[in-house]
Amino acid sequence: MTANAVAAPTAAARERWRAADLEARPLRLERLRERLAADGLDAYLGLRPENSRYLAGFVLGDGEEKVCGASGRFLVSADESVVVADSRYRLQAHEECPASRVADLVGSFVDAWPELLGGLRPISGAADGGVRRVAVEAGFLSHAEWLRLVEAAPDVELVPVEGLIEEQRRVKEPAETERIRAACAVADAALAETLADIRVGVSEHELALALEWRMRTGGAEGLAFDVACLSGPRAALPHGSPGERTVQRGEVLLFDFGARVDGYRSDMTRTLFVGQPTAGDLAIYELVARAQQAAIELLREAIPVGLSITNRQLDAAARDVIEAAGQGSRFGHGTGHGIGLATHELPSVGRSAAEEPLPSPTVFSVEPGVYLDGVTGVRIEDLVAIDDATGSVELLTAFPREVTVVGV
Amino acid sequence: MTANAVAAPTAAARERWRAADLEARPLRLERLRERLAADGLDAYLGLRPENSRYLAGFVLGDGEEKVCGASGRFLVSADESVVVADSRYRLQAHEECPASRVADLVGSFVDAWPELLGGLRPISGAADGGVRRVAVEAGFLSHAEWLRLVEAAPDVELVPVEGLIEEQRRVKEPAETERIRAACAVADAALAETLADIRVGVSEHELALALEWRMRTGGAEGLAFDVACLSGPRAALPHGSPGERTVQRGEVLLFDFGARVDGYRSDMTRTLFVGQPTAGDLAIYELVARAQQAAIELLREAIPVGLSITNRQLDAAARDVIEAAGQGSRFGHGTGHGIGLATHELPSVGRSAAEEPLPSPTVFSVEPGVYLDGVTGVRIEDLVAIDDATGSVELLTAFPREVTVVGV
Repeated sequence: MTANAVAAPTAAARERWRAADLEARPLRLERLRERLAADGLDAYLGLRPENSRYLAGFVLGDGEEKVCGASGRFLVSADESVVVADSRYRLQAHEECPASRVADLVGSFVDAWPELLGGLRPISGAADGGVRRVAVEAGFLSHAEWLRLVEAAPDVELVPVEGLIEEQRRVKEPAETERIRAACAVADAALAETLADIRVGVSEHELALALEWRMRTGGAEGLAFDVACLSGPRAALPHGSPGERTVQRGEVLLFDFGARVDGYRSDMTRTLFVGQPTAGDLAIYELVARAQQAAIELLREAIPVGLSITNRQLDAAARDVIEAAGQGSRFGHGTGHGIGLATHELPSVGRSAAEEPLPSPTVFSVEPGVYLDGVTGVRIEDLVAIDDATGSVELLTAFPREVTVVGV
Repeated sequence: MTANAVAAPTAAARERWRAADLEARPLRLERLRERLAADGLDAYLGLRPENSRYLAGFVLGDGEEKVCGASGRFLVSADESVVVADSRYRLQAHEECPASRVADLVGSFVDAWPELLGGLRPISGAADGGVRRVAVEAGFLSHAEWLRLVEAAPDVELVPVEGLIEEQRRVKEPAETERIRAACAVADAALAETLADIRVGVSEHELALALEWRMRTGGAEGLAFDVACLSGPRAALPHGSPGERTVQRGEVLLFDFGARVDGYRSDMTRTLFVGQPTAGDLAIYELVARAQQAAIELLREAIPVGLSITNRQLDAAARDVIEAAGQGSRFGHGTGHGIGLATHELPSVGRSAAEEPLPSPTVFSVEPGVYLDGVTGVRIEDLVAIDDATGSVELLTAFPREVTVVGV
């Protein structure tokens, strides 16, 4: 296989993204500080890698949080953001986080905790100048370490918080959407090239690896998540890893995959037909395609004329089509999810999510599916970017959604 | 590139490993129950994926814990192990965990928590038959969720525990060592094939991808960790990701990488020379090789004659050689680490680890290094299996450790 450079982002694009992030970070920090001040909190301890990248610029690879110790954790005070780095990460932190102070970590984070706090100016402006109440990303700190931090600085109250930065991340800046668009282009091109590899007898595992390889030599720094490639009845598994099963004529072949470009992710699903589709598979495909189209049409009718729609309304637009066909029980998941630095983020587009207007500008997936256990499954997934201010509804996924026959 | 099937494990080997695990799990569970009973604990909640695989057999891919919800969490009571699975993972749990009860999760783990506990027979045998004190893997449960579990079942005391199963995992059963050996063979073969790709002008990133590809088409189900490929002065970075820097004549080229076979991992480092080595690089290489050899010799002198040695003694054997050459400050990390279902596990072979005899049988790395900031770096890493009972010391890594010149 040869490298595919068509969709690879240019050095100029990368430099533009870097500059955009540098400009945006002070505003992101200010929004966080306003929220903390309103809640009487003096400082913020962040642990989630995506949040560290968003607020400070520190980059960890997928899974690297398991081996990097406390490197990349960050603190926000009234006048600083502070990035923690041990000796392995010091140089990287200085390069990636020019607007932050880098705190050199020698020994354990728990041992360093009192001194880290000692250097901070409180956001809420307590009278004696010390930090007393610290918001902590409690969904990303283990309970064991929480206990050790409490013990290390018993006079400081730790306040568990969740979702403060994730709430900001729902709304996408132009340079963020641009990177998701770039990740979509890499994925589109990789699937287009992989079509030639599909033939009867090739295994799901081989095709998944071929698609991964094309993304990673075609402009992606990595995957958004492990490639799913499921054939025939296995396409009915909403979760499922590619296995040794081989592609058979007259079956569906489902790919669910995404690329990562400068930290931002794409996510798409295509269900292809190996040889002539069966009438049953084709009927399901057309139903799912109509459901997806209904959701996209709702956006195209509402957003350009200034009407806001909610996450639940969008879910219902797709779900109603499938329910009207009597297949509602075969569509067990939500219609979509936001995407950005994480593959799954806000907004949540499903019937069980709390109802709220879609944020703007934002990017999310539209991915209805119908699954017949042990028989077949179809899902079609695209990313959509919307912007209430400009009235735009943009499909970021370009790969055709029409019935696609392969392997013949 | 073509697939390399030489080192790929056979179906017979996989079946043997499956049978060995099925036979071992009841003993692993009994050891845990004994420990819990001694501490007056009624049940155990496990969350770490490696522990779930070890005790119950449930398999998650790397990073899958971020998207699988509570699936794979497990409970141990007096007479059962219970694996939690939502609808996506139910079939998998039944297949992989035939000796466990599968608890179907509908809705959140927190909501299900009281009912999950209600069905358990307490280990410590409290008079009224209910579970009162539950050990929880507090290093793998977020503080936020800990608070929600406490609230959901306020009458049950959660007791934070760490390392109970990890302590067992230090000692390797024969079928565990066999899988680490198989992962070593895949990695050895992949590096041997990748030598042909090394030439002046090829980038670190391209070589890392080529090596990864060979492992994943040559019998590895995945990587043990992201491949490190660092050239010239970048080899001095004990942490460092492969980048766009290209291989240059007269420089070192360091590969640190490992394969994963049936969940078990390998880890090896080779520092190669691109063209004629410089006298300085060669001197460092020979120093590091002597240090590594000294540690291996200590094992070969002690283990066969029934002498136990400690983790710190082993570290000192390598470190003394480097310190005697006046380069002690350039060897900033430990001499090695245990390996198995996790890349880094017990025993810890370093000077700051608590001193204790090496467990037996066990597998660990021996990986001294010398790093000259901004100039060059050398590390040589092999896995070693020891067994006090048979007196054996086995090098699992077979790739030559002699000076290897490439790219000419």
